[in-house]
Amino acid sequence: MTTRDTVLAAAQRLLTTDPTASMAQIATAAGVGRATVHRHFASREDLLHEIGRRSLDRWAATLVEAEVTDVIASADPERIRACIEEILGRFVIDAHELGIALTDPTVLNAADLHERATALFADEVALYAAAQAAGVLRSDVPARWLGHSVYGLLVAARDALVAGDIARNDAQALVRSTFLEGGAAR
Amino acid sequence: MTTRDTVLAAAQRLLTTDPTASMAQIATAAGVGRATVHRHFASREDLLHEIGRRSLDRWAATLVEAEVTDVIASADPERIRACIEEILGRFVIDAHELGIALTDPTVLNAADLHERATALFADEVALYAAAQAAGVLRSDVPARWLGHSVYGLLVAARDALVAGDIARNDAQALVRSTFLEGGAAR
Repeated sequence: MTTRDTVLAAAQRLLTTDPTASMAQIATAAGVGRATVHRHFASREDLLHEIGRRSLDRWAATLVEAEVTDVIASADPERIRACIEEILGRFVIDAHELGIALTDPTVLNAADLHERATALFADEVALYAAAQAAGVLRSDVPARWLGHSVYGLLVAARDALVAGDIARNDAQALVRSTFLEGGAAR
Repeated sequence: MTTRDTVLAAAQRLLTTDPTASMAQIATAAGVGRATVHRHFASREDLLHEIGRRSLDRWAATLVEAEVTDVIASADPERIRACIEEILGRFVIDAHELGIALTDPTVLNAADLHERATALFADEVALYAAAQAAGVLRSDVPARWLGHSVYGLLVAARDALVAGDIARNDAQALVRSTFLEGGAAR
């Protein structure tokens, strides 16, 4: 691991539990001096921007590796459902590791990151729209709302993990099941 | 409306759509000078703290006005279900009006606000636990997870409203229905 990666990994961990952590606290968590952190990242904003970029890289990789484009083209309900469960599981891991990127104002407001996030959201929503057409997801709500709901449940999973309210090994199943089946008793 | 309230209302609106808005931008949005904003709020942190306090006041008022304590004591499934629907509807309005408070790091990390939020979350979770015991909400997930899920769906509703992906008049029904029934087709 390069020093830069060590700093980033420590920053990701620390900022997810303490979103206002300073560069000095990040340096301590990484076990390096402040000067070393500043050699790699000119400012806290630069560091957060890089975490945001990594988060979008993971999101993009998940959609590619889950073959979302092919799955949409197949229009096969079973493949679509399996694909949704796969991407939700990967998103939960990423939300745990890169959780700060989900809600940090610096990340959300950077124009280049915002543009990429908008495009990835549209790709993801296309899967939910295909799922609606295939009878996998309900059709009485906007597909984009389903996309926002997934995002909201990822924020919930991150916070529940940080608070110690759910077990790490339960997080994926909880998000999948809550997104698909909701909270009402059956 | 006092000048202080005018500034706060403008700040709430602007920060919900632009979480990094500066004090100067808030002054412009409120139609007052920067000096006026600074006379009421010494810093951006002070202003955000006040928005956080107002947000918690609403949360507390909702739990009182929906008679959550009485509803829990009743153990009546119909009253519990109606109470959950009522608080979700109110939370959606508050998330729209005070949306910045849901995820702003300054708000979330202020020790006094965090302490109050923890206590209110526990009161809310007690309702979900009562709902599980009464067969209204599913019992195979932690009651605290249901609390986090509600919070996540409020973040989703705020973002979907800001993005223009859902109609304001649909937001309450979307959150209620998604929380209770989930996204799968029936």
